[in-house]
Amino acid sequence: MARIEYRNLDRVESFTRLLEVERPNLSALLCADRLAESEIPIGAGLVYNYAAKPVDQPILAQLQGIADEQQLIAKYREILDGGIMNAGEGRMVLHHLCRGKLGADVAPEGRSVREFYEEQRGRFGDFARAVHGGSITAAGGSAFTSIVQIGIGGSDLGPRALFLALLGHEYEYAGKRRRGPLLETRFISNVDPDDAAIALRGLDPQTTLFIVVSKSGTTQETLTNEALAIRWLSGGGVASPKKQIVVVTSETSPMARSADYLDSFFIDDFIGGRYSSTSAVGGTVLSLAYGPEVFEELLAGAHEADRLALDPVAANNAALMDALIGVYERNVLGLPATAVLPYSQALIRFPAHLQQLDMESNGKQVNRDGEPVAYDTGPIIFGEPGTNGQHSFYQLLHQGTSVIPLQFIGFRQNQSDADLDFDGSSSQTKLTANLTAQIVAFALGKRDDNANKNFPGGRPSSLIHGDRLTPASLGALLAHYENKVMFQGLIWNINSFDQEGVQLGKVLTKKVLAGGGSDPVLAGYARLLGVTL
Amino acid sequence: MARIEYRNLDRVESFTRLLEVERPNLSALLCADRLAESEIPIGAGLVYNYAAKPVDQPILAQLQGIADEQQLIAKYREILDGGIMNAGEGRMVLHHLCRGKLGADVAPEGRSVREFYEEQRGRFGDFARAVHGGSITAAGGSAFTSIVQIGIGGSDLGPRALFLALLGHEYEYAGKRRRGPLLETRFISNVDPDDAAIALRGLDPQTTLFIVVSKSGTTQETLTNEALAIRWLSGGGVASPKKQIVVVTSETSPMARSADYLDSFFIDDFIGGRYSSTSAVGGTVLSLAYGPEVFEELLAGAHEADRLALDPVAANNAALMDALIGVYERNVLGLPATAVLPYSQALIRFPAHLQQLDMESNGKQVNRDGEPVAYDTGPIIFGEPGTNGQHSFYQLLHQGTSVIPLQFIGFRQNQSDADLDFDGSSSQTKLTANLTAQIVAFALGKRDDNANKNFPGGRPSSLIHGDRLTPASLGALLAHYENKVMFQGLIWNINSFDQEGVQLGKVLTKKVLAGGGSDPVLAGYARLLGVTL
Repeated sequence: MARIEYRNLDRVESFTRLLEVERPNLSALLCADRLAESEIPIGAGLVYNYAAKPVDQPILAQLQGIADEQQLIAKYREILDGGIMNAGEGRMVLHHLCRGKLGADVAPEGRSVREFYEEQRGRFGDFARAVHGGSITAAGGSAFTSIVQIGIGGSDLGPRALFLALLGHEYEYAGKRRRGPLLETRFISNVDPDDAAIALRGLDPQTTLFIVVSKSGTTQETLTNEALAIRWLSGGGVASPKKQIVVVTSETSPMARSADYLDSFFIDDFIGGRYSSTSAVGGTVLSLAYGPEVFEELLAGAHEADRLALDPVAANNAALMDALIGVYERNVLGLPATAVLPYSQALIRFPAHLQQLDMESNGKQVNRDGEPVAYDTGPIIFGEPGTNGQHSFYQLLHQGTSVIPLQFIGFRQNQSDADLDFDGSSSQTKLTANLTAQIVAFALGKRDDNANKNFPGGRPSSLIHGDRLTPASLGALLAHYENKVMFQGLIWNINSFDQEGVQLGKVLTKKVLAGGGSDPVLAGYARLLGVTL
Repeated sequence: MARIEYRNLDRVESFTRLLEVERPNLSALLCADRLAESEIPIGAGLVYNYAAKPVDQPILAQLQGIADEQQLIAKYREILDGGIMNAGEGRMVLHHLCRGKLGADVAPEGRSVREFYEEQRGRFGDFARAVHGGSITAAGGSAFTSIVQIGIGGSDLGPRALFLALLGHEYEYAGKRRRGPLLETRFISNVDPDDAAIALRGLDPQTTLFIVVSKSGTTQETLTNEALAIRWLSGGGVASPKKQIVVVTSETSPMARSADYLDSFFIDDFIGGRYSSTSAVGGTVLSLAYGPEVFEELLAGAHEADRLALDPVAANNAALMDALIGVYERNVLGLPATAVLPYSQALIRFPAHLQQLDMESNGKQVNRDGEPVAYDTGPIIFGEPGTNGQHSFYQLLHQGTSVIPLQFIGFRQNQSDADLDFDGSSSQTKLTANLTAQIVAFALGKRDDNANKNFPGGRPSSLIHGDRLTPASLGALLAHYENKVMFQGLIWNINSFDQEGVQLGKVLTKKVLAGGGSDPVLAGYARLLGVTL
């Protein structure tokens, strides 16, 4: 195998050639045959379809050339095998290992990382079963009735999006068919004390379990909200509040050192916050909410997607194709944003998770060697579920002056059994009919002599479709986007696994909290905002 | 007064001159004196500060010139006086009148619109008091304990955002200090049946009141969800389900004709969906949730902002200045998006409301006469509350390759009394210290020889600040953005009050539901998505 080399996108010959390839008209391209030919399996029954993307064979050939020249699959294997891919921080990137082994054994200092992840998964799974079974109880001896996860960023958005996505899912647990969480489940993220105040409203301190999640054990917002939780528990008559708190953290964090907590579950430095949903960060709360089996199903779906993403042929690799087309839209067509539009209310916060995943990973201006790049990197990501968005920002998507590529997600069945025929069709049929209509309206548009009623069309979209949103398909969906973002970062030759851009704010916040120092602008804003010290 | 003329932005002389004005460096501009000089009252104690926007006196002079040449205040007065500003649909635009009179008497066909709005406000206010007092009950005679609003788009996003924004607000009602809604309050919007299934979980059909909101009375999603609600009520033993439904609709809609409903509250064609939060659309649910006085306070704040927006001098008119600077960023600097970043968890869904308000109003490609415009119009709007966003997409905002203007919102006090000192400062202090730090970090950046740790700065932001998020300041905030969007639409010479871009999707959806017709692409996607007819 050729030696792996890292080079900037503008040094890739296929990319240079791609800039010269004629850009086809989407309306002319899209036809029924193309629709059937543009399907790529993602895993767990999900399929990625790119028929409504403005890429024809000459373009696809150059995109495949980029994948080959940039050695994307070899670099993905390098990640799986424990290469130091987070170069700046000198770390391996091993979130794939949370859901199954695809690479070499990785055992720094003689300890198998895979075994460590499996051990933790077993521990928080057993813990969840013991809580459900009543052998682990609140400090006063009562069974827990509610859980509250305290975390921010990657310790919040992914786990919360996944939790919400399974609210309507029917599953079996302890011999019973169920729908909805086993325990009332809430989340606190913001340092704004109003967040905790609302989240805790109506809960009973005597039967509430907290999950405090911080890899470093030093996250300002999370420690502050933990203190609020401890006060709330104490105020509710819980004598040993930490006995109603479990922590998810790294073994080396300050939080890991306390024996006061009810229990502790561990991750390590090889799992970035925004990639941590399939680790103990997402697993603890999901296992408590829906049982460990549901979480295992999610992991299996993610693992299948990871495996399918190893195919070197883009036409067979959904994450790779999605990544390449995104780069075409960003760096050739010059489009600054992508909208994620799930036609599934269950995915209401999935776009917010993807917003972090993508924008924090690839919103970079330097390559992996720390040198500025001369091309655009990650786009803006935003979105809301359809059909809601149709009654909101779709006006601009259809008739605005900027073209915004779209990523639709839809399922042939809904989660609940609450459907109803009304006015000739069911709710689910109306939902998928609307999605069908939108894809075609965006792609083909409609000529009208009245310019106000004219639809220019040519607005590209992809469609991820599946039978139903289940833990497995949700896991595949999650992994698809993680792998897409990874491939794009490799194409752009940037480090998708650090986040130096969040540091300056932290430093300046400390300065403000220390009195503002001598900086008159900082002091001026602090005065305006009534920062009291 | 000069006759009002409508012209495209590229025919405005001040705009042509503005394109030639030197573009200042934000880092060089921002200083403590500028901070103090850049304050403009919005109303209800809120202040708009544009110190960290890259606009100096030469630019501001041309922006004022645009305001004058485009006769923005005269056109705003024309709206207030009942001019036909929604030209395509031949309608007046009278949402300002929901919160107070600032223009001429408007009485088409002899009926005062102001009196009509006031009458409806009195009616839904009395209704809410009767529900709270127990004189209006559920069909079985029990007091109502919960309300569910069914609506989509403007009948959902604004009312929902305002409801969530007041969850922590302390208020007096019926002689008692309270915090939190008087009735359990939920919302259903999506035609996906999973939305209703989750929203109704745990509610008692015997004591649940529905508010069904559709101006036209024909909104597919809303009628479908109403049918689901009726089935749910029937299934729960309610013999006359419509006696637990009130409707908010126009007097001419099919829904208005049914005498079966418990009650009906009316709006008219002069209030667009996305501008309807201060009409019966927002007022009914907010009066039921928090009492009519809270809603009146919100209206008073909005009215004050409307009044202050009449000032012809941009330096004294926050909505006007905000609009002008936005046009500078969009049409001179060429920036495609704006992020809305409230440092207040209560405003969690306010960006989603603004996304509709702005993108549906100004995502247009034709001017008010239906002719294509040759310049960019409305930007992409997205956002999440801080500090959450800091741990998510801020990486791209700080170090991405695209500059995205920011609109920060912050309050000196939080809503709840649940604050706590921890590690030397309270949660609220940490929140505002973070906001302070971010503004300065974005504007000034920080040189570092390590390019990966370099912050280019020059990322513009505005700050809306106030003492506390109350109904009045929330109303002012809402009106500020409505008026900003209105001014921008007038600057671009587009119709901000229609939404022709949503029509094609509706037409094609009907076609799909009718069997797909002969269009093979439509039929192909319908098959892929399992649209069953």
